[in-house]
Amino acid sequence: MPQPPIRIGLSGALGRMGRQMADAVQADARLALTARFHRPGIVGEGLVSRDQALAMADVIIDFTTPAASTDLARVCAERGGPALVIGSTGFDAAELAAIADAAKTVPIVRSGSFSLGLNMLVGLVEQAARALDPDDWDVEIVEAHHSHKIDAPSGTALMLGQAAAGGRGIDLDTVARRARDGVIGARPAGEIGFAVVRGGSIIGEHSVSFCAEGETVTLSHAAGDRVMFARGAIAAALWVAGRPPGEYDMRDVLGFNAS
Amino acid sequence: MPQPPIRIGLSGALGRMGRQMADAVQADARLALTARFHRPGIVGEGLVSRDQALAMADVIIDFTTPAASTDLARVCAERGGPALVIGSTGFDAAELAAIADAAKTVPIVRSGSFSLGLNMLVGLVEQAARALDPDDWDVEIVEAHHSHKIDAPSGTALMLGQAAAGGRGIDLDTVARRARDGVIGARPAGEIGFAVVRGGSIIGEHSVSFCAEGETVTLSHAAGDRVMFARGAIAAALWVAGRPPGEYDMRDVLGFNAS
Amino acid sequence: MPQPPIRIGLSGALGRMGRQMADAVQADARLALTARFHRPGIVGEGLVSRDQALAMADVIIDFTTPAASTDLARVCAERGGPALVIGSTGFDAAELAAIADAAKTVPIVRSGSFSLGLNMLVGLVEQAARALDPDDWDVEIVEAHHSHKIDAPSGTALMLGQAAAGGRGIDLDTVARRARDGVIGARPAGEIGFAVVRGGSIIGEHSVSFCAEGETVTLSHAAGDRVMFARGAIAAALWVAGRPPGEYDMRDVLGFNAS
Amino acid sequence: MPQPPIRIGLSGALGRMGRQMADAVQADARLALTARFHRPGIVGEGLVSRDQALAMADVIIDFTTPAASTDLARVCAERGGPALVIGSTGFDAAELAAIADAAKTVPIVRSGSFSLGLNMLVGLVEQAARALDPDDWDVEIVEAHHSHKIDAPSGTALMLGQAAAGGRGIDLDTVARRARDGVIGARPAGEIGFAVVRGGSIIGEHSVSFCAEGETVTLSHAAGDRVMFARGAIAAALWVAGRPPGEYDMRDVLGFNAS
Repeated sequence: MPQPPIRIGLSGALGRMGRQMADAVQADARLALTARFHRPGIVGEGLVSRDQALAMADVIIDFTTPAASTDLARVCAERGGPALVIGSTGFDAAELAAIADAAKTVPIVRSGSFSLGLNMLVGLVEQAARALDPDDWDVEIVEAHHSHKIDAPSGTALMLGQAAAGGRGIDLDTVARRARDGVIGARPAGEIGFAVVRGGSIIGEHSVSFCAEGETVTLSHAAGDRVMFARGAIAAALWVAGRPPGEYDMRDVLGFNAS
Repeated sequence: MPQPPIRIGLSGALGRMGRQMADAVQADARLALTARFHRPGIVGEGLVSRDQALAMADVIIDFTTPAASTDLARVCAERGGPALVIGSTGFDAAELAAIADAAKTVPIVRSGSFSLGLNMLVGLVEQAARALDPDDWDVEIVEAHHSHKIDAPSGTALMLGQAAAGGRGIDLDTVARRARDGVIGARPAGEIGFAVVRGGSIIGEHSVSFCAEGETVTLSHAAGDRVMFARGAIAAALWVAGRPPGEYDMRDVLGFNAS
Repeated sequence: MPQPPIRIGLSGALGRMGRQMADAVQADARLALTARFHRPGIVGEGLVSRDQALAMADVIIDFTTPAASTDLARVCAERGGPALVIGSTGFDAAELAAIADAAKTVPIVRSGSFSLGLNMLVGLVEQAARALDPDDWDVEIVEAHHSHKIDAPSGTALMLGQAAAGGRGIDLDTVARRARDGVIGARPAGEIGFAVVRGGSIIGEHSVSFCAEGETVTLSHAAGDRVMFARGAIAAALWVAGRPPGEYDMRDVLGFNAS
Repeated sequence: MPQPPIRIGLSGALGRMGRQMADAVQADARLALTARFHRPGIVGEGLVSRDQALAMADVIIDFTTPAASTDLARVCAERGGPALVIGSTGFDAAELAAIADAAKTVPIVRSGSFSLGLNMLVGLVEQAARALDPDDWDVEIVEAHHSHKIDAPSGTALMLGQAAAGGRGIDLDTVARRARDGVIGARPAGEIGFAVVRGGSIIGEHSVSFCAEGETVTLSHAAGDRVMFARGAIAAALWVAGRPPGEYDMRDVLGFNAS
């Protein structure tokens, strides 16, 4: 017997991500788009009030601002639901504390990136790093982005480095080699190296190689367009509906933190 | 306080793999090479008898023949040890049953390939396949080998396909697309595709891609030389010493089967 | 002293490619967009007649239909100019003959693909194939496209195979191995192999490897979006302005056919 | 009618490369190994004197030392032959001048690397760089080597950078970005970037990418074992036999410098 569809409410419905989410939710038979709101007070033209939306949904998907998301989490906690999928970024410490507090009452998936592929990569890198002896396996991270990117290595590359360091139980800062130029000597065992490519319109490519004597394992991700974020948010919504209260991330959704 | 080194006995000590293992064991401070034997009756020139070797070792590493390995497992079980790492291949059903029987008494790691990287790849592929929705993520396997290889796809490529199919809870044979040529129509969701490259002296390259709308995750392995097998056997020996009886494989050594 | 900009007229100006070309031409200081026409009789809203456009341009860029392009080439030849860059595809033999005839009077660059990168790849592959001994170097072509593509190998992969075969002075059909499955025996020297990947939303990736004992050279191209075609058409327009009459292709623009 | 085989004399015949060359020459039906010498005065056990060797060969293949190669070139010039293939490295200016002088009388192919694939890569990179507009195409070079290599970027990576810069008619030093770390701003057009990977036992991998808006061309080389150098030396010997006097390199052998 098929499950009834999960009822989805969209926050920030007039924003670019909100509109893209609406298309993605409507294309998915496991979901029903039951309510769209933009800001608490705006109604009409297909939009309902926030209060109405909360009453009509099992899960709210929210890609807005830290302030709006924090307020939304607080209200959901007061009401005792619905569940939340939060994709806003840039929270300060007080906002993070408020969301953690709300997560004592309602289940919340929050992530800085909803790319399933990238979160999968992070999880696999940590796992491989945990199993492969640092004395034998050299970790090297290569990232490529378009020519307009101004910083290096990318935040995602550093996150992958942290996953590798975390898998080894060490601090990335103590082993990171962020660039190599000149006569630098042989590579120390345990080092985690970064290499940076900038060119053209590359959206984002990351690879993590584990290199040993006689063999290499490489785990990589190539990003195309933003549709990947909508797919990840949908996976999170399907996963979080009916969960116990708690603050989760995409690694939970992908099953990495299960014991 | 450092652990005393694990005492290693080498079976098939005069063979190519036996000599390579001896070098690798002697280079590793966590191990002590305490006994080398070739066949049960050959002694002298640094070789002891099999019985002597079994008495002097915590773990025997054995890359020989199915018959010799089976006999060795039986003797170890009768004696109540030592533990075994078996890298022989080509066992028949009766031999496999005898080894499984011996593993009720002594711990045995047995694998068709001791490449840590390849076993890591297989484990990660299964895990990714379990987490990523087959309706969204297309699995494609590409393998490259030297021009003398006569069969396609490689056994390892098929093993990776089985890992992906296993992660999805389906049978590879029902979804494998082993070649594409001509007007074949759009790719069905759930298909697992294979592509084959043959050229030069490529020792072995395998990649498994999970391709979704807007992003791709690729997990790959490149093999260099046989030293990788010695490293894997050592990892297995370190892992199996002191384990409870049971038949294990390299995925256990890498921590994939832990619950 | 800077050159005055080349005056560009756009044919098919209301089509998708016509609009994209307009943006690209206007963004390039070496060019001036002096006239846009759609079909001979449509004027107004920024469009002029075809006759007016031909009088106002040094080069017409034309991505329309075989019939429209053929007619345009004939008229340009009668008038004695301007030069043409033709990106329409699907010409029949009579149309190709008419264009060749027009090219006796005006210079025409015509190509099935205006990707500079892809044309570069084709040229480099032919050159490498000419220089590398087929007895030593195995040619292998891998292509990847989105899951909706219905044929395999891609037309571009076959074009790359023809470039490699052409560089070796042989016919592709006599050496092409379009798929490998089963016990197929060792790879014959001289064979040109194809491997096909289908998944996700991959726009188009092609690689050509030359594999020898102990080393491999790989030449590859990854396509992103259609902007690459506009860039190639602009390069063709800059190149063709002021050339002698003749029918040219992108390999001429890239300097491959120079002696 | 088949050609009679080219008669090859080997210099430095007792060295590692000399022995490997002997195997390769004997395996090639287009060549006959007619004389082996080590140093001028050593004879017996299959070795002849240098004078005898020069009288018995059409081409001498010489992987020795700068001093020995320079002396050999001088003697060949005095005798009026045979032709030379020189793979020694580390010549000083006086030695280079002496070899150039000898090349006025006998044809000499001299190269720092006899890898056909690597020389092919260098030639293709220069050609692509000449044809692709630096304002549109970003050049990025990635190299990977084993963990024992002490300098970065590799000499070969810098040579590839020089080939790209040369194709653009500029000096590499004015545009090289040898590492990227921190907030470095957007990538300037015309820059040639380097990225370095160190790990495991990677023998040598180099890739040069030309990245534009919407497309990327990548040209790469992967090195395996030294057999590739013997193949290149044989190609050079086949090419140089019967040439007019002159100093040539592998790019001539590959046909890149033909006009």
